[in-house]
Amino acid sequence: MTMHTDAVNWTSGGAVHLLDQTRLPHETVFLEIDTIDAMVEAIQALRVRGAPLIGVAAVMGIAAAARRATVDGTVSHDNEAALRWLGNACGSMARARPTAVNLAWAVERLREAVAQRIDAADGEDSAEVMVACLREEAQKIWDEDAEMCRAIGTAGAELFSAGTSIMTHCNTGMLATGGIGTALGVIRTAFEQGKVTGVYACEARPLLQGSRLTAWELARLQIPCTVVVDSAAATVMSQNRVGAVVLGADRIAANGDVANKIGTQNLAVIAGRHRIPFYVAAPRSTFDLEAATGEAIPIEERAAAEVPTADGVSVYNPAFDVTPADLITGIVTDVGVIRPPYGEAIRGLFD
Amino acid sequence: MTMHTDAVNWTSGGAVHLLDQTRLPHETVFLEIDTIDAMVEAIQALRVRGAPLIGVAAVMGIAAAARRATVDGTVSHDNEAALRWLGNACGSMARARPTAVNLAWAVERLREAVAQRIDAADGEDSAEVMVACLREEAQKIWDEDAEMCRAIGTAGAELFSAGTSIMTHCNTGMLATGGIGTALGVIRTAFEQGKVTGVYACEARPLLQGSRLTAWELARLQIPCTVVVDSAAATVMSQNRVGAVVLGADRIAANGDVANKIGTQNLAVIAGRHRIPFYVAAPRSTFDLEAATGEAIPIEERAAAEVPTADGVSVYNPAFDVTPADLITGIVTDVGVIRPPYGEAIRGLFD
Repeated sequence: MTMHTDAVNWTSGGAVHLLDQTRLPHETVFLEIDTIDAMVEAIQALRVRGAPLIGVAAVMGIAAAARRATVDGTVSHDNEAALRWLGNACGSMARARPTAVNLAWAVERLREAVAQRIDAADGEDSAEVMVACLREEAQKIWDEDAEMCRAIGTAGAELFSAGTSIMTHCNTGMLATGGIGTALGVIRTAFEQGKVTGVYACEARPLLQGSRLTAWELARLQIPCTVVVDSAAATVMSQNRVGAVVLGADRIAANGDVANKIGTQNLAVIAGRHRIPFYVAAPRSTFDLEAATGEAIPIEERAAAEVPTADGVSVYNPAFDVTPADLITGIVTDVGVIRPPYGEAIRGLFD
Repeated sequence: MTMHTDAVNWTSGGAVHLLDQTRLPHETVFLEIDTIDAMVEAIQALRVRGAPLIGVAAVMGIAAAARRATVDGTVSHDNEAALRWLGNACGSMARARPTAVNLAWAVERLREAVAQRIDAADGEDSAEVMVACLREEAQKIWDEDAEMCRAIGTAGAELFSAGTSIMTHCNTGMLATGGIGTALGVIRTAFEQGKVTGVYACEARPLLQGSRLTAWELARLQIPCTVVVDSAAATVMSQNRVGAVVLGADRIAANGDVANKIGTQNLAVIAGRHRIPFYVAAPRSTFDLEAATGEAIPIEERAAAEVPTADGVSVYNPAFDVTPADLITGIVTDVGVIRPPYGEAIRGLFD
């Protein structure tokens, strides 16, 4: 059985039941979302985050908003109006955040599938066709993401032998995907197989997805977790406390360069110095073959207010960095682990 | 003229007027300290921090406490009682924090000088001799530290040519020393010479000495400062935003291994990958020839509460790390810049 995340769900009325991750680990608060604006806000404010989960939440949000718009009567029941509503909704949602490619990928997939069905609808109520089809497609994207997580977990767990301690960064679990997670799915699967003994979770400043979210998830799973500040990575690695680094990706270029949470490049360089294997785990929806290298990936800069400092001082706050492919030991995908040279291996994923 | 820090001073009554650095950058609060316990608490709670300044504040604190004890009548006026009081005071103070060697060095220097004077006091009031001599020796240690900062600044500024942007870590300025600072003294001197254009200050989690203290100091000095999270170091370096890394030290072993704020080793490894010069700035009082390598340096682990996380999760919170000598381009001391091989160069500093 494939496990689905509980960070999103449908309410009985067809809205999105969304766990507000900004309140974790101390408060478990759910939001009910059924408008495009509310889901865009939730994505931008990181109430829902993690590249695969953003894609899932976005398409679920569009489905919920379409249903609400039909009930409210703000979308007419002809083909043209339905397609216009869909185009606008998908456009707004796809622009919510720039770096993770899963968002644009999931929204575009949804739009194409639903637009085809609306076009093909003959004599039916277009708005009703759209609502039903959006819900069905959104569920399919969620289901497939959960299944990809399961496959990534199984493929990645093969990499480790018994007694391995793993360092990870940011959050890549049920709070970041439609299923058990990417990197955290690997860790969880390997833990269940008796291979992983514990996890060093980097804090992930400025928004602390490691110490807030990964730590919370691992505690729920009863996987031993030790939190360290991001700056302690070199100390932890030089003390032989970890056998591998495993983390996720927000977008992977055609040459294997990986955009991921700020600090990933730090960890890759330090792991390289200590000859510690450095793995990235991501579904195929995270690859962007149109980005030849990491330089083509847009990096979101977030508000200075996330990094408080003295008056009169500037802040540079990129949310992601790009790790060069040469620092990456392997990439765990839903169809197996690929290794350098990545250009060829990545093309092979999509043949 | 040598500039003294304004992070410590004497009150007119002979107590220590101490800037509470935990309240910066938003509040400027001074404490009046004249007991050993209060100064130990201030050092342990990081109200006063920075390896050289801890040494200065400790000896000033002992002088202030001796004066208060004499006034209160809690130290008798014979040689033996004065020496016993001095021994206890110095012992408590020296144990306040373990990693910075300047603390033990300054306290021991004070103890030796004052004990000699008490021993030599013939027919005088030993308590009064002790009080006067402690004040004089503490002032001398402070003056010399300020002068060492000036000399470090002048020596270090030679390393840079016009148009250099520098990355630094933690705080090494007037809030960390008896004078203009070590690494920040170098940066300030080079800025005044028109060589340094600006500074990237790493935040320095968990206690944010970079974004709270270094940023505050640089804003006061009108030196352009940009704060980044510690995790952004690789991004900043890979974007060619900095020409050098300059930071301080809490203890330097005989082979050139450097104990300094957690994250220093991260920066050294990353600078190495990008072939960016990596300099450490410290007075000779920071060298510990009895520590053959970094492995002999005790690393303080601080409370888990400094790194908040979910319930049921462990925290590993070393306050310092050890950077291997092979990653250090040069060490700027008060008697000039030394370069590898460090063993020989460091012995030469003390000949």
